Amino acid sequence: MRQRNKPWADDFLEENTHIVIPNPQEYKGKWKKFFGNDKAVHIEIGTGKGQFIVEMAKQFPEVNFIGIELAKSIIVTAAQKINESKLNNIVLINEDAANLKEIFAESELATIYLNFSDPWPKNRHEKRRLTYHTFLEKYQEVLQPSGEVILKTDNMGLFEYSLTSFSQFGMQLEEVNLDLHRIHDPTNRMTEYEEKFSSKGQPIYRCRVSFHNM
Amino acid sequence: MRQRNKPWADDFLEENTHIVIPNPQEYKGKWKKFFGNDKAVHIEIGTGKGQFIVEMAKQFPEVNFIGIELAKSIIVTAAQKINESKLNNIVLINEDAANLKEIFAESELATIYLNFSDPWPKNRHEKRRLTYHTFLEKYQEVLQPSGEVILKTDNMGLFEYSLTSFSQFGMQLEEVNLDLHRIHDPTNRMTEYEEKFSSKGQPIYRCRVSFHNM
Ligand SMILES: C[S@@+](CC[C@H](N)C(=O)[O-])C[C@H]1O[C@@H](n2cnc3c(N)ncnc32)[C@H](O)[C@@H]1O
Ligand SMILES: C[S@@+](CC[C@H](N)C(=O)[O-])C[C@H]1O[C@@H](n2cnc3c(N)ncnc32)[C@H](O)[C@@H]1O
Repeated sequence: MRQRNKPWADDFLEENTHIVIPNPQEYKGKWKKFFGNDKAVHIEIGTGKGQFIVEMAKQFPEVNFIGIELAKSIIVTAAQKINESKLNNIVLINEDAANLKEIFAESELATIYLNFSDPWPKNRHEKRRLTYHTFLEKYQEVLQPSGEVILKTDNMGLFEYSLTSFSQFGMQLEEVNLDLHRIHDPTNRMTEYEEKFSSKGQPIYRCRVSFHNM
Repeated sequence: MRQRNKPWADDFLEENTHIVIPNPQEYKGKWKKFFGNDKAVHIEIGTGKGQFIVEMAKQFPEVNFIGIELAKSIIVTAAQKINESKLNNIVLINEDAANLKEIFAESELATIYLNFSDPWPKNRHEKRRLTYHTFLEKYQEVLQPSGEVILKTDNMGLFEYSLTSFSQFGMQLEEVNLDLHRIHDPTNRMTEYEEKFSSKGQPIYRCRVSFHNM
């Protein structure tokens, strides 16, 4: 995603610490307390401009959503959407997903969404893919035993890689969809990338995987 | 596959019992003895007209191949190909794959190829799919521990189903390919269906799965 220079981003984030939470490590093990309720917590990694997670938060008021996005210049756009929405079941974190275990305690999450994660097609960048085994090990720790990882992507190489990586880690495929939009599903919330690629006629892949029986 | 009425099929099979083996149950546990060597045994289920397995037998003289095909009117065409080829590392069996355990002993096989298996798209026909768990249980028995199932298909629904079915059975995905022909692979042997569908520009799916760690 192109990162425009946004000099006002720092100011914006300082003024909106109720949306983009600074020092999220302080809430490790206490996110339900943070939200002030006992609802399940779902996170999206690589939230981008936030369309998916904001729409999900509207659709599922019974869930607490946390969007994690590395790029400051991008997360501000997601934060503005949340500001306008007046939703109280969604916040953002400006962090690297590599730090997941510093932010969430064991079994603290019910679902992890990976939407159009950077594909890192070169073999030597395999370690950076969000479905590399070092990331799966973190997901396993922070997800509750019945929890799921849900991946959507337009990238064939990343999808092939991820199915194999999940399986070799011992995870179980609950669902595989090789053309999500072949049937119109009104409950599917589209991401920015999903809208762009599916409007060009490209198939969107999705899978749901769990750590069942591990 | 369309089954033309071939009245000469019975005669042909009677005259070619060195190619289409009658009473294959008699060789259960003795297939290497049958071939007269100690080479690995690979089978294809639903061999059809035999193009794939005959080409594989040419490419891999160090392997013994057995094609299993239910339809008498179709298997004769495969048998004719073998006749012409003069290969001695390939035979056929006119049986239902459901009887696999009556034909092969535990760990007798190294590889099972499923090529363009009938998709049986209706839910109520799930049991007939060659990747339904009752078939996987048979594959697990007759395959050696390091053995693999290799599935190729053009059918999206069957491929999605099979990936999930393999995974839920506890099998491990070793490789997933969502467009086999995007890169020209001179070692890939095409089946009749594969030629037909890929020439129309349809993607061919392939996966390799094992019972490792089960
Ligand atoms: C290709 S974009 C997709 C954005 C959005 N999910 C969509 O589908 O439209 C990937 C996003 O993931 C973010 N990202 C990449 N690696 C990350 C990481 N390790 N932790 C958090 N965010 C990351 C990038 O900054 C980028 O905004
Ligand atoms: C769609 S055709 C594919 C033929 C060939 N493999 C190809 O790719 O061109 C499927 C074949 O599987 C055979 N078949 C279906 N179920 C079978 C079973 N249970 N046991 C053996 N053969 C079967 C059918 O008779 C048919 O010839």
